[in-house]
Amino acid sequence: MIIIKGGVTAPKGFLASGVKAGIKKSGKLDLALLYSEVPAVAAAAFTTNRFQASPVKVSKLHLKNKTHQAIIVNSGNANCANGKVGDKDAIKMAGFIAKTLLLDKKEILAASTGIIGEYLPIERIEAAIPKLVGDLSETKSGKFAEAIMTTDTVKKELAVKVKLGTATVAIGGTCKGVGMIYPLMKTEGHATMLCFLTTDAAITKGALSASLDEAIDDSFNMISVDGDMSTNDSCFIMANGLAENKKIASKGGDYYKFTQALKFTASELAKKLARDGEGATKFIEISVTGAKSKEDAKVIARRISTSNLFKCCIYGEDPNWGRVAAAAGASGVKFNTERIDIYLGPIKALANGTSVKGFDKGKARAIFKKKNIRIKVDLKSGRANATAWTCDFSKEYVAINSEYST
Amino acid sequence: MIIIKGGVTAPKGFLASGVKAGIKKSGKLDLALLYSEVPAVAAAAFTTNRFQASPVKVSKLHLKNKTHQAIIVNSGNANCANGKVGDKDAIKMAGFIAKTLLLDKKEILAASTGIIGEYLPIERIEAAIPKLVGDLSETKSGKFAEAIMTTDTVKKELAVKVKLGTATVAIGGTCKGVGMIYPLMKTEGHATMLCFLTTDAAITKGALSASLDEAIDDSFNMISVDGDMSTNDSCFIMANGLAENKKIASKGGDYYKFTQALKFTASELAKKLARDGEGATKFIEISVTGAKSKEDAKVIARRISTSNLFKCCIYGEDPNWGRVAAAAGASGVKFNTERIDIYLGPIKALANGTSVKGFDKGKARAIFKKKNIRIKVDLKSGRANATAWTCDFSKEYVAINSEYST
Repeated sequence: MIIIKGGVTAPKGFLASGVKAGIKKSGKLDLALLYSEVPAVAAAAFTTNRFQASPVKVSKLHLKNKTHQAIIVNSGNANCANGKVGDKDAIKMAGFIAKTLLLDKKEILAASTGIIGEYLPIERIEAAIPKLVGDLSETKSGKFAEAIMTTDTVKKELAVKVKLGTATVAIGGTCKGVGMIYPLMKTEGHATMLCFLTTDAAITKGALSASLDEAIDDSFNMISVDGDMSTNDSCFIMANGLAENKKIASKGGDYYKFTQALKFTASELAKKLARDGEGATKFIEISVTGAKSKEDAKVIARRISTSNLFKCCIYGEDPNWGRVAAAAGASGVKFNTERIDIYLGPIKALANGTSVKGFDKGKARAIFKKKNIRIKVDLKSGRANATAWTCDFSKEYVAINSEYST
Repeated sequence: MIIIKGGVTAPKGFLASGVKAGIKKSGKLDLALLYSEVPAVAAAAFTTNRFQASPVKVSKLHLKNKTHQAIIVNSGNANCANGKVGDKDAIKMAGFIAKTLLLDKKEILAASTGIIGEYLPIERIEAAIPKLVGDLSETKSGKFAEAIMTTDTVKKELAVKVKLGTATVAIGGTCKGVGMIYPLMKTEGHATMLCFLTTDAAITKGALSASLDEAIDDSFNMISVDGDMSTNDSCFIMANGLAENKKIASKGGDYYKFTQALKFTASELAKKLARDGEGATKFIEISVTGAKSKEDAKVIARRISTSNLFKCCIYGEDPNWGRVAAAAGASGVKFNTERIDIYLGPIKALANGTSVKGFDKGKARAIFKKKNIRIKVDLKSGRANATAWTCDFSKEYVAINSEYST
């Protein structure tokens, strides 16, 4: 597998665009379109929040269709908690694209991100459709990435190539999200996390869905910015088969190779989200090792990644590791506290549940002064591991989120 | 029931003191003692964090004794994650008091609050014991309240009187805690929440424990400052029988009257904690009504009370109620989103899951500008209710917690 240039238009046959529809008060790009030149199979995972935005409901319904060719996305408005009007608006968004591209409405998927509880300016979206479709291009993945941003400070794109038999398959992706980030998405199932993946691999819809699930569980479902789960989280993938590899239909060699590449792409994109978390000044990787089960390791890693106190001390470059221990202990997972070790970078702070005598606060502080910080919690009770990613918690986070809708 | 002046020394036969032992670098009061002149029955609830501080372990053990007469508490150091040294230090703390007051070690309970993973300066504590015991007085409940504070900005005390038959029973209480506040305590089981309750009621140990559990579930277990559960949370009650009421031994009229008064005392103290939350500028009450079960209502109320995004918008006086909906939806509780109403003070923002047309943002903002803010979520699906309390999330919170141990 190699990393290549580009984003969602890196795989063969995908076009993208991003335009200004006037949804965002700032006047920035706010409407995006992703298009496959040939019918593709699609899979998607959505938020498990009980409140689901209208585009999530509509995309779930449309996903029952066998093939898909386009995804329309707006930023600046979540189209959530708007009742039947919201549902109709989401269907209209898909309908505009279907009409213009001469497709069936059910071949179109939709996503929204932004403020909850305000009605979508659907006329502005309709007015922007001709330009949105007209701008579709192999070179516009950057515009797409930009148009889906809310409080994101950077575009987030990635593409890889992997050899399957004699064919070379590409996977491309772009994502957004810097707040209300604590996704827990399942395939049956204000900022928000959105991800759009594309591939020219030939793969069945069922295998694509299984592969996406595996990739998401170890990537997007392991990041947190603020512990707040969005109503709009969505991760889509379209596979159009243009790479002409032997079609992947079940779990075998090619499936695992493809899934590994997809997992890599998803993880790298997920890390970009954590790194750009609202107000973030530092990126934090939390590894939990030696757990009895992967689920245990995940729960502990996720709990630490959502501890405000832990994230504040990272911001303050203060190696107050007791907060890591407290968060692990609050996870609900049963473990023997008398076996646990905690490392700050390479420095052991806790050994067998006891604070290390001679722990060098100065050296630990030097580690906390870096941009990238690694915390390891070793339970020494089994062989399962998990890794979560988060960012520090800064005054800027509060500033950004206390002034969001105003 | 009437509210009376004072704190833990309001009930007959209780004395308290608070002195400077030199544990806190600031030189403030940091060692406290609560004493009943006659043997009392005691009950306590402790953190359900897997990591438990040494004084929690020691108090759990000592609670097996039939009677208790004193509780020693230090602030400035949590005595947590210090292994066997920490356990021995906690036993020593109890031992110092036992020796000085000629009691059995097991009649003494202990609590600590402060930084995790630093060893207790046990010699300083030992040196301060003569003054600590010598200062015991009916008038020193305020010194006790002060000596248990960490980043608290105010003392938190309350006392009530309630008539049981011909006798009048008093309940007194004091508590501390403004961060690492998201307790979930059970009777079998850096800042931290600590509460000390006293009563001169005659009551059996079993009835006292049951009553405490009931009181805690609707009070301390319903507050959050930052969603971080402490390793040291403890709530103690001692009942010395000096009010000479007919002994409460089982659930009957007097039990319920007593429990109601205890619940009131605990709730008022719990609200003081949320109101003084680290960096707090506003106090927030979240009521969830019309739930199918009390557990459902509690889970939703607690989830909203820990939403950083919701708490940031309260700080910013921004009526962004979508964050309340998103948090409710992320609680894991199943409810019909098409029935739910959300109120900001008296203003309805969401009706039957749909944003209210004509919602007056200006009026809502006026409500958010107040010191005390009430949010109501009505599920309209049952008869169960619950209330949670929290504070807003300010830049000051981040400042306080990024500089805690340094």
